[in-house]
Amino acid sequence: MAAEPIPDHPEPAGDPVFLLHRGGKIGMHPSVPLAGEAELAMAYTPGVARVCDAIAEQPDLVTRYTWVANAVAVVTDGTAVLGLGDIGPAAAMPVMEGKALLFKRFAGVDAVPMCLNCAGTDDLVAAVAALAPSFGGINLEDIAAPRCFEVEDRLRAMLDIPVFHDDQHGTAIVVLAALRNAARLARRGLGDLRAVVAGAGASGVAVTKILLSAGIGDLAVADSKGMIYRGRDGLNPVKAALAEVTNQAGYTGSTEDALRDADVFIGLSGSTVAEGAIAAMAPRSIVFALSNPEPEVRPDVAGEHALVVATGRSDFPNQINNVLAFPGVFRGALDVRAAAITEGMKLAAAGALAALVGDDLAAGYVIPGVFDDRVAPAVAAAVAAQARAEGVARQ
Amino acid sequence: MAAEPIPDHPEPAGDPVFLLHRGGKIGMHPSVPLAGEAELAMAYTPGVARVCDAIAEQPDLVTRYTWVANAVAVVTDGTAVLGLGDIGPAAAMPVMEGKALLFKRFAGVDAVPMCLNCAGTDDLVAAVAALAPSFGGINLEDIAAPRCFEVEDRLRAMLDIPVFHDDQHGTAIVVLAALRNAARLARRGLGDLRAVVAGAGASGVAVTKILLSAGIGDLAVADSKGMIYRGRDGLNPVKAALAEVTNQAGYTGSTEDALRDADVFIGLSGSTVAEGAIAAMAPRSIVFALSNPEPEVRPDVAGEHALVVATGRSDFPNQINNVLAFPGVFRGALDVRAAAITEGMKLAAAGALAALVGDDLAAGYVIPGVFDDRVAPAVAAAVAAQARAEGVARQ
Repeated sequence: MAAEPIPDHPEPAGDPVFLLHRGGKIGMHPSVPLAGEAELAMAYTPGVARVCDAIAEQPDLVTRYTWVANAVAVVTDGTAVLGLGDIGPAAAMPVMEGKALLFKRFAGVDAVPMCLNCAGTDDLVAAVAALAPSFGGINLEDIAAPRCFEVEDRLRAMLDIPVFHDDQHGTAIVVLAALRNAARLARRGLGDLRAVVAGAGASGVAVTKILLSAGIGDLAVADSKGMIYRGRDGLNPVKAALAEVTNQAGYTGSTEDALRDADVFIGLSGSTVAEGAIAAMAPRSIVFALSNPEPEVRPDVAGEHALVVATGRSDFPNQINNVLAFPGVFRGALDVRAAAITEGMKLAAAGALAALVGDDLAAGYVIPGVFDDRVAPAVAAAVAAQARAEGVARQ
Repeated sequence: MAAEPIPDHPEPAGDPVFLLHRGGKIGMHPSVPLAGEAELAMAYTPGVARVCDAIAEQPDLVTRYTWVANAVAVVTDGTAVLGLGDIGPAAAMPVMEGKALLFKRFAGVDAVPMCLNCAGTDDLVAAVAALAPSFGGINLEDIAAPRCFEVEDRLRAMLDIPVFHDDQHGTAIVVLAALRNAARLARRGLGDLRAVVAGAGASGVAVTKILLSAGIGDLAVADSKGMIYRGRDGLNPVKAALAEVTNQAGYTGSTEDALRDADVFIGLSGSTVAEGAIAAMAPRSIVFALSNPEPEVRPDVAGEHALVVATGRSDFPNQINNVLAFPGVFRGALDVRAAAITEGMKLAAAGALAALVGDDLAAGYVIPGVFDDRVAPAVAAAVAAQARAEGVARQ
């Protein structure tokens, strides 16, 4: 309980980023009036007791008479924040607030940043399960791999609301959408393409899975030790499972080896790829160099060899940004009170996102821009329709 | 993951309470603009990474650059909701949202309802400790006694932010404020008064403790089995501790027995007291019949015998309502980043609340009204000043 004053922070005078963050980026607001006793007696005691009683008798009514139906927890344990690593829950708050801001701005979702102090996987699962009744969905964020896979799997099994690890599935949805359009530009089917994914963390694993679901021809994954193949020593269970369903060609060397004559490179690794390796890919190749802030290969360099180049950055064409996916995905899931976000709903989201590009398709436009107002509604509609088609919608 | 449609709710046509609750009573809102790429790059990646880095290096900066400094979790496990009992976390949500609404309306606090699904005390303590980094304070609410005492004690010991069980301390603060003014009207000192408290749940225990701290002359507590006295069989640890410091006169019978010639009755029991027992109190007695919605004795009946009568209801004079305390208490604690809410801060809150009545003191006005705009600022100022005086303020 000791009280220690905050030392003064050497905030650079007039630094617009720190100034913008003063006091945070979000707030709560009342959505009903509370001018006097009559309203107080309805919104609070004694009137509120009747609403509680109704929900106690019929639990699903919580989504009708509370904000739960539109509320999403943006949950992290602070173990893999941006590229900064394990900086802990408190230091992760600016990112989670930013996410909450984007949820509201792009899809009207009431998202609450929940930075949890948890010692490990069991604690994190228990804490999220405990707070789940307060929310209509759980967006997991910036949780280190491989913990993130187990946390998501266990929560999905326990809870009857959507649980969605955005670092995995948000990225996967946008990558698939962009790749569909890049393949269309190259006049190729996805089933004809051979891809190499550099990075076997949260996003690399999820991108691999969604591309396999979408029917990619072949795909091989590399981690920091080289290509992942069946029987490689020391693979963790997630990578061992990947080895079973990827790398039909059996590459055992470096990413550069596997890239020779490959059609698609997807970088999610934080490492670099030599220009020569990009040059050695098949003609009319597709290069998604998605590490931030430094792409695996400079887009202007890659562009000398590839048909389509995408990055994670807003200052180059074709920005692969999760904000194209998660607001609409949750909007659609919440709109129909979906019990989960299924593989089919993710594929539907990618399809809707890709379709927005339409006849404007070009090498510099394989994915809509972040501020394209059509995006979230289109993704939401596709996700909701798929949820209904699969029987996971509850209204 | 089964999807079950919600059966239609037989909502009474035009019922204003249910209509007001449609979609909930609160929402999130952005507090910074997000019009285009430039703002996105500051509020989210890449700019936000610098803010995360700064907090990782100097953790207290989380209160400067995020909403944490103004955010309070309104936490329940749904085990003692209003007078409805253990209705579970989901059915408690309308009350917690109402509380969040009041926090914002009266004190500008960003309060988030957290209805937690927890199997017991250990789970609840663990879940609240996990989510604590996301908040500047924890308001516990509607947690059953005696669990609530242990939960609060353990969390206070673990956390360096205010933890405040409102059913206990909010009620205690307002009761003390009203009793100070009632005693002033009766031209009596608190130390001259003998009080009987009916009810040894959360509020009864807390009222007892604050009245002892404030120097009440003697005080005896009753639970559903009668008066609590030293050596009574089967007392739980909380009641056994009360028995050590209360009931100097040694009453062992019923509440009615103890009320004979008593100066003060405080009802927090949900039971009833006969008119004869009120009539047998000392002259110029003080009767706070605080059970809701049915006071222990009708205020018009009590008023025939007592000098001052207060209830928990808004349709009678002298409403004892927690909303007179908790918004200002948290406002004051957050304003100085207090590490805790101490006994001294609660006494200061009660003193400030009582003082607002001033020269307007009358039998029907011993406590300010709920919509008196002076209340929260006055309570906040007193709480902040006391926090500074005790060295628990951090700014």
